[in-house]
Parts: sequence; C-alpha cells; structure tokens
Amino acid sequence: MQIYAELLTIGDELLYGQTLDTNTHWMSGQLDQLGIKVIRKTTVGDVREEMLQAFKEAEERAHITLITGGLGPTNDDLTKPLLAEFFDSEMAMHPEAQEEVSRYFKSRGREVTGLNLLQAELPIKCTKISNHNGTAPGMWFERNGRVFVSMPGVPHEMRLMMQETVLPKLQQKFALPVIVHRMIKTAGIGESFLAEIIKTWEDQLPAHIKLAYLPSPAQVKLRLTATGEDKTLLTTAIDAEVEKLLPLAHPYVFGFDEDTLESIIGKLLMEKDLTLATAESCTGGNIAHLITSVPGASAYYQGSIVAYQNEVKVRMLNVNQATLDAHGAVSEQTIIEMAEGVRKTLNTDIGIATSGIAGPSGGTEEKPVGTVWIALSDGEQTITKKYLMGKNRDWNIKLSSFSALNLLQRYLNGTWK
Amino acid sequence: MQIYAELLTIGDELLYGQTLDTNTHWMSGQLDQLGIKVIRKTTVGDVREEMLQAFKEAEERAHITLITGGLGPTNDDLTKPLLAEFFDSEMAMHPEAQEEVSRYFKSRGREVTGLNLLQAELPIKCTKISNHNGTAPGMWFERNGRVFVSMPGVPHEMRLMMQETVLPKLQQKFALPVIVHRMIKTAGIGESFLAEIIKTWEDQLPAHIKLAYLPSPAQVKLRLTATGEDKTLLTTAIDAEVEKLLPLAHPYVFGFDEDTLESIIGKLLMEKDLTLATAESCTGGNIAHLITSVPGASAYYQGSIVAYQNEVKVRMLNVNQATLDAHGAVSEQTIIEMAEGVRKTLNTDIGIATSGIAGPSGGTEEKPVGTVWIALSDGEQTITKKYLMGKNRDWNIKLSSFSALNLLQRYLNGTWK
Repeated sequence: MQIYAELLTIGDELLYGQTLDTNTHWMSGQLDQLGIKVIRKTTVGDVREEMLQAFKEAEERAHITLITGGLGPTNDDLTKPLLAEFFDSEMAMHPEAQEEVSRYFKSRGREVTGLNLLQAELPIKCTKISNHNGTAPGMWFERNGRVFVSMPGVPHEMRLMMQETVLPKLQQKFALPVIVHRMIKTAGIGESFLAEIIKTWEDQLPAHIKLAYLPSPAQVKLRLTATGEDKTLLTTAIDAEVEKLLPLAHPYVFGFDEDTLESIIGKLLMEKDLTLATAESCTGGNIAHLITSVPGASAYYQGSIVAYQNEVKVRMLNVNQATLDAHGAVSEQTIIEMAEGVRKTLNTDIGIATSGIAGPSGGTEEKPVGTVWIALSDGEQTITKKYLMGKNRDWNIKLSSFSALNLLQRYLNGTWK
Repeated sequence: MQIYAELLTIGDELLYGQTLDTNTHWMSGQLDQLGIKVIRKTTVGDVREEMLQAFKEAEERAHITLITGGLGPTNDDLTKPLLAEFFDSEMAMHPEAQEEVSRYFKSRGREVTGLNLLQAELPIKCTKISNHNGTAPGMWFERNGRVFVSMPGVPHEMRLMMQETVLPKLQQKFALPVIVHRMIKTAGIGESFLAEIIKTWEDQLPAHIKLAYLPSPAQVKLRLTATGEDKTLLTTAIDAEVEKLLPLAHPYVFGFDEDTLESIIGKLLMEKDLTLATAESCTGGNIAHLITSVPGASAYYQGSIVAYQNEVKVRMLNVNQATLDAHGAVSEQTIIEMAEGVRKTLNTDIGIATSGIAGPSGGTEEKPVGTVWIALSDGEQTITKKYLMGKNRDWNIKLSSFSALNLLQRYLNGTWK
C-alpha cells in the first residue's frame, strides 16, 4: 500500500516573503528515499483557524503529517496549544523534557528561564521527541493509524530530530514500498526537442517506471522512478531503460544523479591528466567561479584572465590589436586568439574563451545584444561556436557560461559536433 | 478591505525533494509590497484530482490565486487542460500566442515544432499573458470577482510576467491600501548586534510604521513598511525615520532599496572616476562575476586575474617567489603583493585581492579551512584584513567575495576603519 504524507509549515514570515523555506525540500527528499509519497505541502500563518483547518485537511488526506514551526516560547507560537486542542488532550509538565531543557541551557552556561521551562509542558496524548540541537521538544501523535509529528522550524533542530527519531519510527510503523530513482542529466537541448527524440522510448516504458522532465537553466534533467517491492529487480529494470535511452539522447547526456557540468569536467580532466585555463569577457569570471566551486579544482585548473577591456585582451592574452581593429572583440577571429592566448599564457593543455554582448546596451544591428562567441583551443585545433541568446544580461551570462562548459564537456567526452 | 492571495505550486519534482521552490518566496515579497496578504501556499503534484481539489479550495478562500508550474509542452503537464475544465472552457488556438511562440523560436534561429505550437492553444475564457522569456503563455481567469493566474514555473519567465502584467493588473483590479516600503541595506554587522545599536530608534517607531529584519548572507536588510491612505504623508514619515536611523547604524549602511554592494561600488567608482582590477585566488572569479553582473561595468572595471596556482600569481601578478616560499599563498605578505600586482599589471587606480583556504581540504593547524586574507591597494597604501570563516566551501567563497566588496565600498565611502 502506498503511504502518503503531507508537510505543513507554520509561520507568517514564510507567507510574507521574509524567510525562504528550505525545510520541506529536505524533508521531501528524505521521505522519498523511504518510499513515502509526499502528496501536498501547505504553508499557513500563525492563525488559529487556518492552522486547525490545515490539521483537519491533512489528517483526512494523508497517513503522515509532518509539521514544522510555531513551537517557540512566545505568544505568537500556536502549534502546541492547537495540537492539544485538535487531539483533545490535557497539557502537563513532562519531567524528561524538563530535564532536557535544563540540561541544554546548562551545557551552554546559561540559566533556564520560566518561559523556556514552559517548553517542557506537552499534551499528555503525545510522545515526546527529544531535541538535541535546541529547547523545543518535538511531538508524535497517533489517531486511527495516522501519524502527526510536530517539529521546530529551525533547520538543524528539525533535521536531527528527523534523522534520530522520526524517520526510524515511520519505517517501523508503516510497511513501505521500495523506490529507485535515476536522474539523467542533459545539456544543449530544449525540453520539447528532447521529448521528440526520445518519444519512442518514453512510450514503451513499463507501468512501474515513471518519467519526469525537470528543466533548469540550459539543462533538462530526466528523472526515472521505479516503484515495487524488490530493490534489485527495480535497479535492474531502471538500468535497462537507461541503456535503451542513451543511444537516443546521446550526445546530450552528460551525467547522472548528483553530477554537474563542472564536476563532470573536473572528473574528465583528472582522468585524462589535462589542465585548463579560461579567458572570459562577457561571462566576466562566472566560468571560473563555476569551475572553482568544485572541491579540488586546483588539481587541473590554472586560472582565468577576465579581460573586460580590449587592452587587457592585447596585453594579457596576446590578442593582436589588428584583429580587434578589423573584426571587433565579439568575433570569431578574436575569440580564437583569446582561447589560444590564454592556453599559452597560463601554460595549459586546454584554453576556453568567451566574448559577447551581454547587454542591456552595447548591441549593434550586425551584432545585437545576446551575440556570444565561445572557443576551445587545445593547441592543435580551435573549436568555435556562435550563439544568439536573449536580451537579459543575467541570463546571457549564465547561458554563455553553461554553453562554454558544455562545449568543454563534449570535447572531453568526444561527443562535440 | 484586506485582499487575500493563495500561491499554488504544481509539480511532482517539488514534492519529491528534487527542486527547491524559490518562486513563492519571491512572489510573496512582491504581493506583500502591494498590500496583498498571502494566507496560504500549497504545493501539489501533477495529479488531476489533487490539482482540481486545490483549485477549488483556493477559489473559496482567496481573492487571488497565483499558480506556477505544469505548463510545459509534455504530457505530464496538466495545468492548462485542468484550468480549462475548472473554468468550463473550450480550448482554441490563440493567434497572437501562436505568433509569439513562433517569434520566440525565430529570434533564436530555430524552427518551431508542433509540440511547441500547441503551447499557443489556450482556454477561450482566459486572457493570454505574454511570456517574453519563454514559450508557454500565462493565463488570467476571472470568476465572481476572483482572479486565477497561471504562470510557468521557470523563475525568470514567471518573474517577468509578474512584473510586466500580473502585478499591474492586480493593482488595477483591486482597491489596495497605500503601502510605502523603504529598505535600508547594511553589511558587516550581525542581526543581533544591529538590533542592539538601533534599539532606542526601533522602540520609538510610530504604530503605522513596521520594521522587519531580513538577514541574508553577510548582509542584514532593514525593511520599513508604512501603511495608510496618503502616499505623500507616508513617504515623509518614513524618510524622517530613516534620517533618525542613519547616525545610529552608520557605518554599516551601504545603500537603499535595489542597491547591491556591486551596484553601489559601480556608482562610486564612476563618480570618483576611478578604475578597478581584481586578483582572485580563493574566490575563484566570483568577485569578477559580481562586479560584471552590473550593466555598464566596463566603464570602470578592467578585469581579473584568477590565480588558482602559485605560478600564475608569480607570472601574471608579479608576486615574488621568495614571498610565497617564506609565507605561503595565504598570508598578509602575499595578499599585499597580489593587490599591488594586479593594480600595476592591469593599470588601474585600485586593486583588490583575495587568498584563502575555501575547503573542504587544504587546511593546516596554523591556517585552518576558512582562513581568508583580503587586500585593497590604491598605490599609496594597502589595506589588509584577515578573516576566519567556516568549513563550508560555498559559504566561504560567498562570504569572502562579499567581504572584499564591502571593504571596497567602505574605502570608497571613507567609512572603513
């Protein structure tokens, strides 16, 4: 039987755009790995009627309701009294919780105040969940086989409670299915074009394997989800589908699961024992930033010359002034000299370069905003690509960076065309 | 009358923990600024019954329902057909939307496919909302004075639609209270310390002006919100409070409203007719990326040498090999030579440099992970600062970048100490 969960988040600050909720994202991933299906997430403010209504709806729909927030010691925090009301339960001081709150304060060299001791008062119908990263205990309620859990909204308090107590208890209580996920990561092709070239494969997927398209800037992720009872069988089935997919989606697939373009490039450069340098104009250092966001990038990355002026291109990258005069900075001739120049100057195997008009101004009829040249030089050849992107500066910078990384990835994988 | 809104997010990927929803956070903030109160956020999967149920509940509770997601061209995207069903509307090809989809593809030099043209088919009862950053049009429905809006889940598509069309239309349709916001941006001080030094001012704020602390990485924003009926009176009142605040919060205040550290730096460099170059080690190009994210940065920014290896520091920045041998790359001596070196090499008035151990590896007992040196050289003096940050690589890169930009901002404003 499929077990359903709902996530309920309490707090005005989440409705007014002041706090970004990252809790439910993490909780979803944890529940998903246990085979528990999250069917709804709801956020309501610190308002009595809204909260009681949300409790009621969640209990009707889901086997498991996980609540975060509204557990602080101040008056505007309503979760505990309203859960007591919802489960028709008296409140009482919980001696073990009281001991834990006192210990928490002592361990930090502080005296516990009356307001904080009140946090140890709990509805008598709940089972206390210890909070080893803070003072507000969690609460576990059961009624008619359904589970309600209340946890603090502070991320590291909630996470530890989930890991120590809530997830293990859920696994004990419910007979959970087995779920296997596989993420296939593609770049350089839009969602609809990808859907067309893999349509025959998608149509033949067995009923217990579902496909989802997850588009993000310049990438489309394909997520396969297999549900059943036997992990080995599911893994075999999903592997077989990936094997069938690859010939169709090749050369757009660059990795799986946690891979990113920059992590894959790092792996390939290390495997092939190659070094890299970049020369950036329109991307303004963003490619360097992406490459160096990977731990250990210093093993293959020398650095970047961010040449935001023509004189820097001439002096640091040895671009010919004559080339700039004749063709301009945003041209195939210049981008070739930039890629070769940085490779030689920083003494690496591969040089990557970008030059373009990110906008919003600087465009001409011949070279409108969004015109971007990218090049890769390895000393034997220089590959160049021209793009016409949009009018949005941030987007052009991001897309140019991804395109350059993807060219490098395909060059290293031998799949560029 | 208080106008209520609900935000409805559609997508399995949000329930399974694969995509972090940042859309509703941004939308909440925008609605809040118009005086529209968000009372609930709901996320459901790409499931017919769940979606229809969520539509129904939202329509009962709120004047305005804003929906994101589920508008892609593929089969798992259900928002459009279900909205047509919910509003009992036929579908028809929308000629203007068809024209826009075709134009979008043409502007990118690509042919439009049948699957994409289908995106121009819309319920006849809706008003089309143009999507200038993508292909799926938005939809605006009205029934019994209530508004339903459907937008794509891709953040930059949704944001442009909101700014261009949805927010102005909501202001026209509903009688909203007059709200005046002022954001005061601070850097270099934590939330609780800031709260202490401005406590007397906060305590005397009039009842119709509310203060919120909005902490973000390395910055705290103070948001003042005045609610009433007369915009001029509210603006005068809020200006008077800002005037009282500034002497207390100086020198931590660097700007207002849409200002960012990098935009303020750009403005100051232009005013003072100064040029800038950067030399980055641990920040790996992120400072260059931030500076060049400002349109028109080429007026004052020469570029960056991202020196990820010692030999690049020696060759491109003229750091002495003897300095590196004696003190290491992460040292005051090296950072001084980097800042002076890049200023001379790229021929600018000011040079900024960073060198540190971003982690997760590379730390020693003497120089643990998180040790970061920052320097600013103007040819007459070099200011240096040492930080001990945390263990998280991404966080260290971000914090180092902000700290370097803040040092530059305070140098230019004459408020560094």
